[in-house]
Amino acid sequence: MKDKQQKPIWIQNISQLVTLASDKKGPRVREAMRELAIIEGGSVWLEDGVIQDLGTTREMILKYLPRAEEAEIVDATGKIVTPGLIDPHTHVVFGGSREHEFEMRLEGASYMDIMNAGGGIHATTRKMRSLTEEHIFNQTTRRLDLFLQHGVTTLESKSGYGLDLENELKQLRVMQRLQNKHPMDIVPTFMGAHAVPEEYRENPEHFVNLVIDEMIPAVVEEKLAKFIDVFCEVDVFTPEQAERILLAGKAQGLIPKIHADEIEENQGAHVAARVGAISAEHLLKVSDEGIEELAKSGVIACLLPATALYLGEKPARARDIIDAGVPVAISTDCNPGSSPTISLPLVMNLACITMKMTPAESLCAATYNAACALQIEDRVGSIEIGKQADLVLWDVHNHQKLHYIFGVNHVKKVWKKGVKVVG
Amino acid sequence: MKDKQQKPIWIQNISQLVTLASDKKGPRVREAMRELAIIEGGSVWLEDGVIQDLGTTREMILKYLPRAEEAEIVDATGKIVTPGLIDPHTHVVFGGSREHEFEMRLEGASYMDIMNAGGGIHATTRKMRSLTEEHIFNQTTRRLDLFLQHGVTTLESKSGYGLDLENELKQLRVMQRLQNKHPMDIVPTFMGAHAVPEEYRENPEHFVNLVIDEMIPAVVEEKLAKFIDVFCEVDVFTPEQAERILLAGKAQGLIPKIHADEIEENQGAHVAARVGAISAEHLLKVSDEGIEELAKSGVIACLLPATALYLGEKPARARDIIDAGVPVAISTDCNPGSSPTISLPLVMNLACITMKMTPAESLCAATYNAACALQIEDRVGSIEIGKQADLVLWDVHNHQKLHYIFGVNHVKKVWKKGVKVVG
Ligand SMILES: [Zn+2]
Ligand SMILES: [Zn+2]
Repeated sequence: MKDKQQKPIWIQNISQLVTLASDKKGPRVREAMRELAIIEGGSVWLEDGVIQDLGTTREMILKYLPRAEEAEIVDATGKIVTPGLIDPHTHVVFGGSREHEFEMRLEGASYMDIMNAGGGIHATTRKMRSLTEEHIFNQTTRRLDLFLQHGVTTLESKSGYGLDLENELKQLRVMQRLQNKHPMDIVPTFMGAHAVPEEYRENPEHFVNLVIDEMIPAVVEEKLAKFIDVFCEVDVFTPEQAERILLAGKAQGLIPKIHADEIEENQGAHVAARVGAISAEHLLKVSDEGIEELAKSGVIACLLPATALYLGEKPARARDIIDAGVPVAISTDCNPGSSPTISLPLVMNLACITMKMTPAESLCAATYNAACALQIEDRVGSIEIGKQADLVLWDVHNHQKLHYIFGVNHVKKVWKKGVKVVG
Repeated sequence: MKDKQQKPIWIQNISQLVTLASDKKGPRVREAMRELAIIEGGSVWLEDGVIQDLGTTREMILKYLPRAEEAEIVDATGKIVTPGLIDPHTHVVFGGSREHEFEMRLEGASYMDIMNAGGGIHATTRKMRSLTEEHIFNQTTRRLDLFLQHGVTTLESKSGYGLDLENELKQLRVMQRLQNKHPMDIVPTFMGAHAVPEEYRENPEHFVNLVIDEMIPAVVEEKLAKFIDVFCEVDVFTPEQAERILLAGKAQGLIPKIHADEIEENQGAHVAARVGAISAEHLLKVSDEGIEELAKSGVIACLLPATALYLGEKPARARDIIDAGVPVAISTDCNPGSSPTISLPLVMNLACITMKMTPAESLCAATYNAACALQIEDRVGSIEIGKQADLVLWDVHNHQKLHYIFGVNHVKKVWKKGVKVVG
């Protein structure tokens, strides 16, 4: 993607240049989530893949007029620019599609009916095991294109549809290939403990051992993941199993995350705090004590309002979580079962509509705090000099409107590492 | 838009040609809402603005191969075609935007706080009264473009932001101009009784008289509306006032509709049945008796799940309403306060996700039953020979997927009266 011959990009007259710049480091909590550091009438100069300079259009014209002829000039009158969105929680690498389960569910089938009909995560695992790597790669490429078209320039991607050594590695290798071939930045997470595969249904403990003894070392050996995640839930993995797996990963250099307290309160937040997880995901049923634990340990809460909506569950208590001082990120949870969407902007709408987050909090949660959840905030997540030139131009006058008008893709242009990839 | 020189359009290899054709007339209830009359591997020939023929691709090739050279051929492999969507309930003609109220609400302001700060419907009424007709026309044009891009080829549009004779007529005249200038078919509804304007706060009965004695005759005189609607709600218009207004309109040839039982149960469904309304809108709080009344009188229930979501209200009881034999239509309710969206496809997703309608029911509710709610089902709402050539090509393999994957615009092409307007 990078090209030394690439012209600089000079964006001018931006109605709101929403930088999210700050002197403070680390994930933002409470009031700091609302400080967007907006430059009204802003301008930004992108060069060599990075943000070279920014300011008001007036200041920037004084500085850069002599170089205007070199640059591609973009007039952003009446529009806003934000950092590229960051999706910190996806299961985007998969094959197949599960619309017939969706219909079954609406016709009244229970989750167990669907599982017994061979559906659910096991259906997607069968696809991961049976389809070629090429097929999975191509299907995922189309999804990543859609993510880019909706303003997402970096996303996390979890394994967990292979559920055996060979196919977990296959899924992670697809991510590695995509990272090399697609403009999207992909941050890989190993999640072998996403479900107990059918063949281990009678002895899940053996599967836990397999994850720890064989999968983690192989993933680390091939440098296929940065994070490790586990689905800590009643009837999936117990808090004890989750803790063992996460600590085993951590011992080998993977950073822990955890699917916590989604369907039932199950000590997920406590495990997150104990193992020093970077983030805890879902948290629909987290207890007050769980929230306190997260706040004390500085764990980021990654909230997934599209999933809650899709499952008909009450949304996470974002207000309580923010008020307790826990930094919040938001995400699509893109997956074929409980959140078949690639639209992080819709998730931002839902964060406001269903969780009563403010537009400013939502934007922070989908950019800077999301970057923190992936430990890449030194490079992306805000518009600051020297950072990677990942930016989105939106066809709205102000950032509130981005959250207020829903169901429409407001993206006008997207630049990834200083190169226009959309618009 | 119509052009005699326009080439015929021949769409072939359609994965699912979802016709919604039926021998039975009138709005569909219960099981009939699920009968989509799908042709797998379908093909359709559009000519002179109408659907000239359709069938399987094999049949159609035998018939039309000799004329293939005249036509523009569209290969729809892996995609579906449906009738153009029909939105039977919008407030799309307005000026301004109310994102700051949205933010105030998220910051904890109550509805009354916002009203007292000059917000709510009164804010939009001030805009309708102060902005030029040209400005309103241009803002609405952009919205109609977005509706088309999301597959909507016909929509209903209500007045109700003027709230005085001059400005109600102004709003309706904008619709008339748009009907002449924009590809969208616009079905106008007079809704002078949308709110009691500030200047009549102390004597709402006088405003009701104004609507009946001055506005209705003027609207009828200028032939500016087909329907009449009223907001029957606690603290807005009483059931008695609603009934008086609707009957006055009906006596002059307008067809009644009613905003009923939205925030509180308020006899809205009963009024709908008594006045012989074509449809009753919202119905979030309708009682069991209200549902029975609708079923007995053949009133169409127009459900608005995006509004319920946006307001944080429980969705309408679509399952109970369908099971009782009431025909259901769905709509965006596009308006700047409680549903700032133009995406009927998202509403179709929400109909499934939040109201447990099946994909088939949802599609019927956004096409054929919506056409019935506007009394235009002889012309649009299904793909049948002789009907207006309003069609949408969607980039999904089956109609379930259209409802299953949410937050993405699946529209690939749109034809309006046989002319491609999108794609
Ligand atoms: Zn997940
Ligand atoms: Zn309405």
